Amino acid sequence: MSEKLIGSCIFGQSGGPTAVINASAYGVIRAALDAEEITRVYGANHGIKGVLEDRLFVMDEEDPKELELLLHTPSSELGSCRYKIADPETDDTDYKRILEVFKKYNVRYFFYNGGNDSMDTCNKISRYMESVGYECRVMGVPKTIDNDLFGTDHCPGFASAAKYIATSCMEINKDAKVYDKGMITIVEIMGRHAGWLAASAALATEFGSGPDLIYLPEYDFDMEKFLQDVMDVYTRNGKVFIAVSEGIHYADGSFVSEAKTSSTDGFGHAQLGGLASLLAQIVRERTGAKVRGIEFSLLQRCGAHIASQTDVDEACKAGMEAVRNAVNGVSGKMVAFKRNKDENGNYKCDYVLIPLESVANYEKKVPMEWINEDKNGLKHEFIDYVLPLIQGEPDLPRENSLPRYARLKKVLAK
Amino acid sequence: MSEKLIGSCIFGQSGGPTAVINASAYGVIRAALDAEEITRVYGANHGIKGVLEDRLFVMDEEDPKELELLLHTPSSELGSCRYKIADPETDDTDYKRILEVFKKYNVRYFFYNGGNDSMDTCNKISRYMESVGYECRVMGVPKTIDNDLFGTDHCPGFASAAKYIATSCMEINKDAKVYDKGMITIVEIMGRHAGWLAASAALATEFGSGPDLIYLPEYDFDMEKFLQDVMDVYTRNGKVFIAVSEGIHYADGSFVSEAKTSSTDGFGHAQLGGLASLLAQIVRERTGAKVRGIEFSLLQRCGAHIASQTDVDEACKAGMEAVRNAVNGVSGKMVAFKRNKDENGNYKCDYVLIPLESVANYEKKVPMEWINEDKNGLKHEFIDYVLPLIQGEPDLPRENSLPRYARLKKVLAK
Repeated sequence: MSEKLIGSCIFGQSGGPTAVINASAYGVIRAALDAEEITRVYGANHGIKGVLEDRLFVMDEEDPKELELLLHTPSSELGSCRYKIADPETDDTDYKRILEVFKKYNVRYFFYNGGNDSMDTCNKISRYMESVGYECRVMGVPKTIDNDLFGTDHCPGFASAAKYIATSCMEINKDAKVYDKGMITIVEIMGRHAGWLAASAALATEFGSGPDLIYLPEYDFDMEKFLQDVMDVYTRNGKVFIAVSEGIHYADGSFVSEAKTSSTDGFGHAQLGGLASLLAQIVRERTGAKVRGIEFSLLQRCGAHIASQTDVDEACKAGMEAVRNAVNGVSGKMVAFKRNKDENGNYKCDYVLIPLESVANYEKKVPMEWINEDKNGLKHEFIDYVLPLIQGEPDLPRENSLPRYARLKKVLAK
Repeated sequence: MSEKLIGSCIFGQSGGPTAVINASAYGVIRAALDAEEITRVYGANHGIKGVLEDRLFVMDEEDPKELELLLHTPSSELGSCRYKIADPETDDTDYKRILEVFKKYNVRYFFYNGGNDSMDTCNKISRYMESVGYECRVMGVPKTIDNDLFGTDHCPGFASAAKYIATSCMEINKDAKVYDKGMITIVEIMGRHAGWLAASAALATEFGSGPDLIYLPEYDFDMEKFLQDVMDVYTRNGKVFIAVSEGIHYADGSFVSEAKTSSTDGFGHAQLGGLASLLAQIVRERTGAKVRGIEFSLLQRCGAHIASQTDVDEACKAGMEAVRNAVNGVSGKMVAFKRNKDENGNYKCDYVLIPLESVANYEKKVPMEWINEDKNGLKHEFIDYVLPLIQGEPDLPRENSLPRYARLKKVLAK
């Protein structure tokens, strides 16, 4: 146990929102408010930009009950950002400003919640503070629906998005196959470089009502093979349900969503809809069938009403662990998840620490050995991986049968 | 009480699916199985087409527990159709065939679940059977997310879709306003001629996290006024959230979704996305802002996981009431909902009967006096109307935290 470090803390949220990023916020804020070493808890408005602009909310001023509602409030309640911080060796302007703000509020703890880029930001701030001899413990809290962070079994936010996708696919499959006419349905799922979310549609298939075909960005997309796959199922069943990751790409690396298509009328130039619309048009031309494209869009990442309670719990615990470790002397680490088994052989999550620099700028993908040989579906190894993560229904706080979100006062620090 | 009519019954589902149409199916099937007058219960595969093609499932063969799961299984489990039956005076081929099948199975009760067109089908069959002197009691059970049926305060299916829309809008609003940059989000909601569903997005606004602007098909759409509305909010807040009904139309009656736009590059000719994409493109060009279009698509009508329990209960009861009345001698009616108050002044639904011919081919719209003066939002009268309907969370049967739908054997009658 290292020497006690007394001072205030700043917590910030970064990158795309999730259904449970505010659960991590609650974990950090609650633990920080309870930690005797931490004198004041600030929430940065719009992540690191809030630090740079000295826009800090005083969390000590909030009603504890409202704070607790963060557990079930989607999106980033303090505001997020996509600010890319410079390398301190190239340009230390931002770092000097951060140091200034840290000194102003006697900030000795900095907790940052985000994905790869945010861990990179965290790491740079940590190294800079060390280099100038300002004692400040910096901890990363993981977050991303994409589930692509290195060094952690999975990421907070992924499981709730996966559960949204699986449930919605089960419902769509029921709806899209209701008529006695041919019908092809294509859903587009988030995931630019890693296919974890699109793969999660396989849960719906596993439980009897899901996609016939699933395509991921882990391998090159072949339009002719795709059309043949679709025709095979269409000929057999008269109905096809297809899930595609937004990040599917041709062998030359170009995204299918952005590529000019081989379609005769060259409609590609006026692409208004997304990938689902584009594929729907191509499949319609080839098959003559009725084809519908559906994009889950923001819905999949903010669906707090159908979050995984496991995800909520783990996201909150990750925040708490970051604070617990920091006050115990740890710095420069991200809280990561290690999959384990309890005494009954059931899924259990352990919390471990990994160096921030190992997380930054590396993307973890779906293992090729979990993808079927035809490259249009998932093997049971993937189901085994994802199923424990989506378990449990949150007891959603409601008013008039609609979600009751946290209402924070957001008092600015002076 | 009229004379007992002994014989079998056929139940069919028609038109677009909803989250609770199978709850009505359960109501009819359960009540029919329990009615001593009804000797056998058949479910028509794909509605009236299943009757014409003699594809009838024997409901008596089903496991009662699986039947009960219909209460929470979205879409039309027996299969639906959009078959338009001829006028018996013009062409009685279909009616002769229906009579033949009715005689074959000694069908004395016919229950049909659907919207305007289905009530028209019901009415025609009822009149035909009467004209040829075949005793058969015909009852309609209402269904439509569009909520546009005449003579009923509201329609089964509407409230669950409204709740899906309100909840999803609350979540999207949180997500779409998270960055410190300008952002405009447009969601497209079902409703070709009546704006009940798009109007339901106002529930999200009422509870603190919803659209700034809502446009309905109840009035002519003015693109210039729309763009001005959007700019006003954008200038004020930097963020705009807009809900539009798919059925918004210009003064000449042409749908905005189908019209060539006034946009300079003539992209209208290659329209791939839907209305949301089109409006997003126009708003993007005008404002230079980041604009996102989201279409709720099938998700809004099959979201059984977030159904209204009030809707589930009423849908089921409507089916039961149809059977109860039919065995008591009623025919040629649709079960309708009458809004009432219980002894404590709380919402209560009464079940009444209205003649089938009064329902057919008339569309009920959102009253103009419930729409605000600027024609871009709803007044409190609408909230008062819709709020009681979305109350209550279903205790969704689950397996592995995913929905567990009914698995019917669907044994064909010989």
